[in-house]
Amino acid sequence: MTPVAVIGAGAYGTALAIAIAKTGRPVQLWARTTEQAEALANQRENSRRLPGVGLPPSVQPTGLIADIKANATLLLAIPAQATETFLRQCGDALPSAPVVLAAKGISLDDSRLQTEIASALLPERQFAVLSGPGFADEIARGFPTALTLAASDRHLVSTLQDSLSTPTLRLYTSTDILGVQLGGALKNVVALACGMCAGAGLGESARAALMTRGFAEMQRLAKAMGADPATLAGLSGLGDLALSSASQKSRNFAAGYRLGARAVAAEGQTVEGIATARATVTLASRHNVEMPIAAAVTKVLNGELDVAGAMQALLARPQREETA
Amino acid sequence: MTPVAVIGAGAYGTALAIAIAKTGRPVQLWARTTEQAEALANQRENSRRLPGVGLPPSVQPTGLIADIKANATLLLAIPAQATETFLRQCGDALPSAPVVLAAKGISLDDSRLQTEIASALLPERQFAVLSGPGFADEIARGFPTALTLAASDRHLVSTLQDSLSTPTLRLYTSTDILGVQLGGALKNVVALACGMCAGAGLGESARAALMTRGFAEMQRLAKAMGADPATLAGLSGLGDLALSSASQKSRNFAAGYRLGARAVAAEGQTVEGIATARATVTLASRHNVEMPIAAAVTKVLNGELDVAGAMQALLARPQREETA
Repeated sequence: MTPVAVIGAGAYGTALAIAIAKTGRPVQLWARTTEQAEALANQRENSRRLPGVGLPPSVQPTGLIADIKANATLLLAIPAQATETFLRQCGDALPSAPVVLAAKGISLDDSRLQTEIASALLPERQFAVLSGPGFADEIARGFPTALTLAASDRHLVSTLQDSLSTPTLRLYTSTDILGVQLGGALKNVVALACGMCAGAGLGESARAALMTRGFAEMQRLAKAMGADPATLAGLSGLGDLALSSASQKSRNFAAGYRLGARAVAAEGQTVEGIATARATVTLASRHNVEMPIAAAVTKVLNGELDVAGAMQALLARPQREETA
Repeated sequence: MTPVAVIGAGAYGTALAIAIAKTGRPVQLWARTTEQAEALANQRENSRRLPGVGLPPSVQPTGLIADIKANATLLLAIPAQATETFLRQCGDALPSAPVVLAAKGISLDDSRLQTEIASALLPERQFAVLSGPGFADEIARGFPTALTLAASDRHLVSTLQDSLSTPTLRLYTSTDILGVQLGGALKNVVALACGMCAGAGLGESARAALMTRGFAEMQRLAKAMGADPATLAGLSGLGDLALSSASQKSRNFAAGYRLGARAVAAEGQTVEGIATARATVTLASRHNVEMPIAAAVTKVLNGELDVAGAMQALLARPQREETA
């Protein structure tokens, strides 16, 4: 069976490696440092990022890109904002197989999507994206999870679906690679807003209203950028938003919550939505799309607006006809 | 100012009466029995259904339909399955003003919507519907809430919006009265399914995936019945689903959860989704729409299918392309 190499041993990368190992394929798990790889190999567990779930015997940690098998299917699971640096440093050393991009975010520097960044650096390579609602610990523990796998090439996406699906990690396919990426990235911004709303103590009804309007914003921008709005109503988009906008287990929701509750925003983990919110405002302006929620989130993150005031203003927007 | 009469002193009716009183209008609150009305009047609180929130002085409880002022705007907030009986008994005694229907449900007997039931019994009357994400206790306590108010007649809906909106209870308008009703009713079925999924311990990722597919089902049926699918993505529909599919405060989610956890399903409160699920299966069949989630929920409610098995089957459905 073709091996799989998961690049990035954070919670999500480790969880994907553990889940995909159930296909019976050999799975390599690349960690950024040799020390991390050795700790994974010795403890047979990612004690820092995903404690309590053992690595199956077929998962082989490594700290060296050169160790990755030449015929491996590659799955990139590093933070979205680190993709460019990683591919600049290591892209040429990677085997020539298609790369599945699992990070969800828009580049803060230049508002580019993951496939835009990757294609610019590795122009000969085929890319797919993996996105949708899945908490790392649930994926690792074998809870039923459904994600979307997208690539422009129908044959590629079908081959990858066969390689990576397991009985508990079900992959649905799409050829709207733009819409799937936008869904995964933009929901982080709305999840931040919902977290702020909850943290500010405004209640569940307000959070649900904000989520609904946030979803409409996501669809508006996606449509203006050429994606199919229906893609956003799928697992990557609405599904991921449903998961992220209502749970403290979502890093974005939790970060928004801390801001809403005016606690100190101490960030040990990657909060993708913070960079993506800023990048989204740039994209919205470029494509002439109104996105008041993304704008408000960004102003709060920049310290230009008070959370409670921003949420109240959003909920009190003068918009009388619902579909206007 | 024109008075408002809220008919039905359950949690939701009481909450609407308290909220609308903030407009400064006199509000009558009709309870089914004189005893209930007297208790409300003496305690200035609905101690059974909405304890801890006082009735403002301008809310006047009554047990007599004949007490309702002739020029009152009427807001019907009784359980959906009780609408027909109530209107048969009391419809002729009601003042001739337009009636806002606030119940969310599809009639179990004949799969009819609230406006269909009401129009058949009071054919000369104008009707509007009120729907969207709002927990009664949050509405009563003045937490920011946004609901959709719909009527076929644009002038009517605009007049009602002016009468019933408050700074914290914001009403958005729609003329898709069919879509708004379907959104409010069908989300109960999906909330039941999400509760079952959570109760069976299948995790948040699975619940999010189920919610996404459930939303697609809701849109499919609504479209087949002639509603605008975009209406379902609004507050009544997606917004209400976001609220109901992730919170134990939702009666439907909580009832599903108890079934999922195999606890005894002791129902003291109205669980609208149970009747609506059965009615939905009838509608789906009549309109030739595939609704596997509604079908599975109904089978579980009928005792024909085990919850965990039903949820697993739904999540493992062979559907390879996401938009297929």
